[in-house]
Amino acid sequence: MPELRKDPITQEWVIMAVERARRPSDFVLLENTSPDAHPEWSEDCPFCPGNEAKTPPEVLAYRKMGSPNSPNWWVRVVPNRYPALAIEGGLRKVGRGLYDTMNGVGAHEVVIETPLHNKTLPRLDESAIADVIWSWRDRYLDLRKDRRFQYILIFRNQGELAGASLVHPHCQLVATPVVPLEVVHEMQGFRVYQDFHDRCAMCDIVMQELDEGERVVLENEHFIAVEPFVSKYPFETMIVPKVHRGGFVDMSREEVEQCASILKGALLKLEVCLRNPPYNFNLHTAPCGQEQTATFHWHLDIVPRLTTAAGFEMGTGIYINVTAPEDAAAFLRAADVSVRDVPKLDFAPR
Amino acid sequence: MPELRKDPITQEWVIMAVERARRPSDFVLLENTSPDAHPEWSEDCPFCPGNEAKTPPEVLAYRKMGSPNSPNWWVRVVPNRYPALAIEGGLRKVGRGLYDTMNGVGAHEVVIETPLHNKTLPRLDESAIADVIWSWRDRYLDLRKDRRFQYILIFRNQGELAGASLVHPHCQLVATPVVPLEVVHEMQGFRVYQDFHDRCAMCDIVMQELDEGERVVLENEHFIAVEPFVSKYPFETMIVPKVHRGGFVDMSREEVEQCASILKGALLKLEVCLRNPPYNFNLHTAPCGQEQTATFHWHLDIVPRLTTAAGFEMGTGIYINVTAPEDAAAFLRAADVSVRDVPKLDFAPR
Repeated sequence: MPELRKDPITQEWVIMAVERARRPSDFVLLENTSPDAHPEWSEDCPFCPGNEAKTPPEVLAYRKMGSPNSPNWWVRVVPNRYPALAIEGGLRKVGRGLYDTMNGVGAHEVVIETPLHNKTLPRLDESAIADVIWSWRDRYLDLRKDRRFQYILIFRNQGELAGASLVHPHCQLVATPVVPLEVVHEMQGFRVYQDFHDRCAMCDIVMQELDEGERVVLENEHFIAVEPFVSKYPFETMIVPKVHRGGFVDMSREEVEQCASILKGALLKLEVCLRNPPYNFNLHTAPCGQEQTATFHWHLDIVPRLTTAAGFEMGTGIYINVTAPEDAAAFLRAADVSVRDVPKLDFAPR
Repeated sequence: MPELRKDPITQEWVIMAVERARRPSDFVLLENTSPDAHPEWSEDCPFCPGNEAKTPPEVLAYRKMGSPNSPNWWVRVVPNRYPALAIEGGLRKVGRGLYDTMNGVGAHEVVIETPLHNKTLPRLDESAIADVIWSWRDRYLDLRKDRRFQYILIFRNQGELAGASLVHPHCQLVATPVVPLEVVHEMQGFRVYQDFHDRCAMCDIVMQELDEGERVVLENEHFIAVEPFVSKYPFETMIVPKVHRGGFVDMSREEVEQCASILKGALLKLEVCLRNPPYNFNLHTAPCGQEQTATFHWHLDIVPRLTTAAGFEMGTGIYINVTAPEDAAAFLRAADVSVRDVPKLDFAPR
């Protein structure tokens, strides 16, 4: 019989449909695109070194020498050429009959994670990934100064099926003039749990997961990577700091390095086990200015796009998951992601 | 500049990204499957007449003569062979550490809408569509008697990209042992609006939409079909009764016929304008037993699957819509969906 599981934070139910179960290895046969199908440098790619003029002027770059908007960077952040929200102008809120509207003020930036066109994020060195995360922190701290912005989301789309339109490794950052309802609901969930138990729900989750062990994929001193008990999707993977912290932005450099290490490990396992699946990840963090005060515990959710949400999910918000997280975790733990699986770099990013 | 719009019921924000705009006609070039690619009858299809033994025994059928589970039906309802929730057993709620679980008790049924394998729902006669809606009502009234069920969702997946695994026209019905969070939030939204204005939000929406007219696609005596002001997706279409009613199940036969007529019209316009797009629809109705008392106004949401929700939508719940509903409505209104667009039936379903 299927099992319903309730998310202790968001209070969402998920149906674990064991009768419809698909074994973890069933997903491996999907036709996914290998990054090796692409060249290391592409003349047409606006994110490749030498093509800096094809993007709006950079807002951040890590380079040892050279002038802005020239090559020799290893991480480069630029405004999105087709932004979902526009940076200019004040916030105007206008009613139209019963409807409420607001002009689309915000920021939409692209973090180019490496100069190498055909790399994937987990195939970068740990220190290069740490620099990508550090660039999120740098941009976050800068954007947070802008009082129009209430929330900053960092996310990544990998593969066409996950909404990526460009191959070159990149993630994105959007600052919004409202706290998104998804975040409001998550904060409410943390609050309800805190009021009842006088403890943080995510701290309790980390403790129980480490105690039970069956859903943990990776662990290091500061982080765990775990298949959530209430996974909505097969191979959903959550990276959580062990120590309570509302906002990711307050990580020390040492924590950023450990975060990079576990992110690399988790993504590499998904990449090798599921043959470069399309996926999204997004970073759940407290709203701007509430990083220290909100009842929140930041985490990063990785969602491989292996199944299709349909009418039932849309109508109820209840997801049907055909792969138990316990099975997915065992499959990922067993995967041997040793150095020989990772092609040697011809060119080190720095 | 993009515009943010807030749903007056769910309070969700949507970004109308006019700078990224795609014209309605851009979606027509998608490669969608025409039902004409399939035969009228398929030996292997469990939903085709003559193959009744390939499904679990029917729970409802409309036929003039003949015994159960034989041909000569025009609508037939059977349990799903691979149910997301199982019909047998009592409800057991069990805690596992901090996690809450429940065994997966529920009902999962398939409504086979026509004996014709290669038909689409809007290409049926209005009276045949009315019978499909009537079968929802029949099954709803029967399932509602079961006190284990708190909510009954009716939905439809059309096309592989929208999660359909079988070609033969069918929709589905799932009874759940909980009120889904999506419905809880929608009810809360109706309640907040009602408390503030002492009116129903959806009644106000219907009035404003009819007054402004620019987002209305179709109208008849009892219903409107409208592109919502806060559409999350291009060509999202909502069918709403003009008169306040919490549950769809309380429709009269006359209203069911008008509902069938407007559903046929709206789906036919989408089918002809966008060349058989994949889509989902789902019916938002009050929870079981609260049809008369809940602050709710039922409606049916049609969502063509033309774009991909990605990391941003997942992380925020804020959808980026690249087609303004005003443009989509104008495009659909202009479409000539006359009889000549509809292939002549070789065989009438009854």
